[in-house]
Amino acid sequence: MSIILKELADLCGARIEGGDSSATIHSAAEITSAHQGQVTQLTNSRYTRHLKHSMASACFIAEGFGVENVPESMTLLICPDPELSFIKAVELLHPARTYEQKIAPQAVLEANIILGNNLYIGPYAIIGEDSSIGDDSQIHAGAYVGKNVKIGKNCRIYPYAVIYDDVVIGNNVIIHSGAIIGADGFGYKFRNNAHVKVPQVGNVVIEDNVEIGANTCIDRGALGSTLIGAGSKIDNLVQIGHNNKVGKNVIMCGLTGVSGSCNIEDYAILAGSSGIADHVTIGRGAVVMARSGVAGDVQAGAQVFGSPAKDKKTAYKEQIAISKLPELLKKVKMLEEKIQMLEGNS
Amino acid sequence: MSIILKELADLCGARIEGGDSSATIHSAAEITSAHQGQVTQLTNSRYTRHLKHSMASACFIAEGFGVENVPESMTLLICPDPELSFIKAVELLHPARTYEQKIAPQAVLEANIILGNNLYIGPYAIIGEDSSIGDDSQIHAGAYVGKNVKIGKNCRIYPYAVIYDDVVIGNNVIIHSGAIIGADGFGYKFRNNAHVKVPQVGNVVIEDNVEIGANTCIDRGALGSTLIGAGSKIDNLVQIGHNNKVGKNVIMCGLTGVSGSCNIEDYAILAGSSGIADHVTIGRGAVVMARSGVAGDVQAGAQVFGSPAKDKKTAYKEQIAISKLPELLKKVKMLEEKIQMLEGNS
Amino acid sequence: MSIILKELADLCGARIEGGDSSATIHSAAEITSAHQGQVTQLTNSRYTRHLKHSMASACFIAEGFGVENVPESMTLLICPDPELSFIKAVELLHPARTYEQKIAPQAVLEANIILGNNLYIGPYAIIGEDSSIGDDSQIHAGAYVGKNVKIGKNCRIYPYAVIYDDVVIGNNVIIHSGAIIGADGFGYKFRNNAHVKVPQVGNVVIEDNVEIGANTCIDRGALGSTLIGAGSKIDNLVQIGHNNKVGKNVIMCGLTGVSGSCNIEDYAILAGSSGIADHVTIGRGAVVMARSGVAGDVQAGAQVFGSPAKDKKTAYKEQIAISKLPELLKKVKMLEEKIQMLEGNS
Repeated sequence: MSIILKELADLCGARIEGGDSSATIHSAAEITSAHQGQVTQLTNSRYTRHLKHSMASACFIAEGFGVENVPESMTLLICPDPELSFIKAVELLHPARTYEQKIAPQAVLEANIILGNNLYIGPYAIIGEDSSIGDDSQIHAGAYVGKNVKIGKNCRIYPYAVIYDDVVIGNNVIIHSGAIIGADGFGYKFRNNAHVKVPQVGNVVIEDNVEIGANTCIDRGALGSTLIGAGSKIDNLVQIGHNNKVGKNVIMCGLTGVSGSCNIEDYAILAGSSGIADHVTIGRGAVVMARSGVAGDVQAGAQVFGSPAKDKKTAYKEQIAISKLPELLKKVKMLEEKIQMLEGNS
Repeated sequence: MSIILKELADLCGARIEGGDSSATIHSAAEITSAHQGQVTQLTNSRYTRHLKHSMASACFIAEGFGVENVPESMTLLICPDPELSFIKAVELLHPARTYEQKIAPQAVLEANIILGNNLYIGPYAIIGEDSSIGDDSQIHAGAYVGKNVKIGKNCRIYPYAVIYDDVVIGNNVIIHSGAIIGADGFGYKFRNNAHVKVPQVGNVVIEDNVEIGANTCIDRGALGSTLIGAGSKIDNLVQIGHNNKVGKNVIMCGLTGVSGSCNIEDYAILAGSSGIADHVTIGRGAVVMARSGVAGDVQAGAQVFGSPAKDKKTAYKEQIAISKLPELLKKVKMLEEKIQMLEGNS
Repeated sequence: MSIILKELADLCGARIEGGDSSATIHSAAEITSAHQGQVTQLTNSRYTRHLKHSMASACFIAEGFGVENVPESMTLLICPDPELSFIKAVELLHPARTYEQKIAPQAVLEANIILGNNLYIGPYAIIGEDSSIGDDSQIHAGAYVGKNVKIGKNCRIYPYAVIYDDVVIGNNVIIHSGAIIGADGFGYKFRNNAHVKVPQVGNVVIEDNVEIGANTCIDRGALGSTLIGAGSKIDNLVQIGHNNKVGKNVIMCGLTGVSGSCNIEDYAILAGSSGIADHVTIGRGAVVMARSGVAGDVQAGAQVFGSPAKDKKTAYKEQIAISKLPELLKKVKMLEEKIQMLEGNS
């Protein structure tokens, strides 16, 4: 896909400055690696030093972002929000592969299925009975959709994602390969020296505009639903146990685990490899920093770190104190001796 | 599925008190969300306060569990073990989907396979040569069973679980989607600046009544077997390396990793995101608390916390001490000054 | 597979001492479990005590590795590198299953594919358009190869591994089941109270001789490539985010996470459940110890531990100091009292 620079600027809401606005742009790249025919962005002043050596033909930059030494051959694309304009440019220059309307002959469609318009259902995909798929959705090769599943419009279910029975999925949801939605929650009662399985008869409800990463697991509720709120984004290899209620626009990074029956409120951020014990509330907009383990409620807007997690400032103070601890041990030993001497003298 | 309350009580071994024993119960729910026509349980005194507002038509409760303010419309189902009775009720009201005896035409069955009676083998499931499947087992859509695999009776292998060659699986085993059983262990020797692969020619043996969560990985032995003992329950996204011996009725929660050649003895509990270094023994009934990292043996019955993990009491004491550390630093500085003054005086 | 001991010794470059060199060896085993007809190795002096009770018919051992009490029936196989010789023996005695040249009729091959010689493509494998597979490679049952993917020679792609579009894979690469290569990186911009997806239009490049464990995820670059250098070995359930550059012969153990845009230089080792924040460089040959969390650059050759990770010696010193901290608190309290008394006296 190639676009004349002037046209790209117009489509992305940018004003042109310098360079050759009639140049052809064929792709987007980072400022450190871009070459002729590519467009880049400069939004972080840490990268400003790369500008003068950049071979990019064009660069999105914010109104008023001060730069010097712009290469002669580079056109600045000045705009209010260069990150968003660059996203627009990337979408134009690197359009997603399209999938024509098609139900592959090797797909298995069980009885009583409701199919929307303009669907792509790939080879070896399986749609269980009583399920429905909304308009414009893609169910890629080998994706497994269980029985009585509802999938909304414009969803993309990647190869070998697995949706267990009774799961409900909204519109514009992306589920990557290997994600397992609706497997049994992990619940047992210990009786007569053995673990008796608690039936897991709830489901998972995923609201609109959610993205779920590769190999992530979201367990069905024991009773009732595990809920993923609208706009939440979940990275790869995340474990979300049964009956969690995840709010809207929550971020969960890779390898994070949420045990069960938690409330993760809107806009919370769980950074990489963090973990949340069961029945915990993470307040609206709270941030659980990477590798932290949370055992009790976290207030809205708080930032916590460590395992067990504490308020970030407290945790940092303790970390600094720990780094002084070996020295402190020596010092106290010395004070002890001095006191002994003073006691002898007095 | 609906049941008359009186009948439900009988089937679950409960005695009726109050309410309308001829009411129809159609499903089970938690006490906080149950409404008319639903049965619930009250087994934890933290939830007693919810009883008086509950709309549930019936509630399992232990003989002698003191409650007041039972709603008029609610029948108490009094029994010796309400948790188990409630499990029974859930199973009655929410029966698992049944799968009729069937070998889907799209399943691939290689040569020399022994099939038991009353099997369900779903579309695109693959059974490798020389393998056997016991009576009443379900091999769901797309599940992959390698060559020379033995699967016992009444097992349930969910879609896209993968069983590598030579794995042996007992009876009543549940393996969820995306679980990978028997991939190569992670073993290399470093020679001439490169990693030489150590052949992984052992297998995995899974005893009866084990449940294995979604996307969990259990590696085959390098030589000999990786063993999962009877009744053990393993959550999602758990990594179990080669040649581990996991005992009976062990619990392993999500995102836990066990490196290799460990002994995890009967009834041990590895909580979420914990990790065990190689060649370590976790004693019978020991508990490794969430996010703990164990580098040395843990005695039977011990509870350990932290990374590196220590006896729980010690670890907690240290955690408390750390929280006092910033204050301690100030105090010692003050003492230092006082001593200096005393030294000047003496 | 059986071999006469004398012949095995020759094939593995070992000299025979004692025992019966005409014995038949049928398999390999660990020294603690080996019995008659099996060959073992002794390379670690911790295991020397097991030698005298071993029933193995033969044992690889290093030139000059002092042993006594060798059982009469055991032949020592003396060689310069018993670990490598034992690997050779295991490969001879336990040969990998062979897969005859075959393209299963149930495989889906889209348009414009270039296939090498001597390929095995299993049932329900899918190869997307414009992709190529090099000679002698195995694409096992149900493996998904997207569009415009290049796979080199002699690769083994296990069942239900997923290779997204545009991924490039070198020669002799092994990818285990459930590994997801090339899913979207985790990138969003927060605008108008929602997360706007940053298009992920790069790819993943995997060089020669790489092995990738079960259920591991390697995300495609946002722009440009995520790179896995030649000879690197990655365990199960590892998360490698977008635009990471992993060098040659790197080791990453299970459940490790690397956020994004990191440089993991040649020969680095990331032990189990470790984590690396974004834009971090892990220097050549550096070791990140198990469960450590790295937020800043690590120098070549360094060993770091803890979360936040520090130089191993510093971290260990702090760990020891922490274990003395509860005692220290008491001691300081005592000193305080003594000083008070001294102050009263002076």
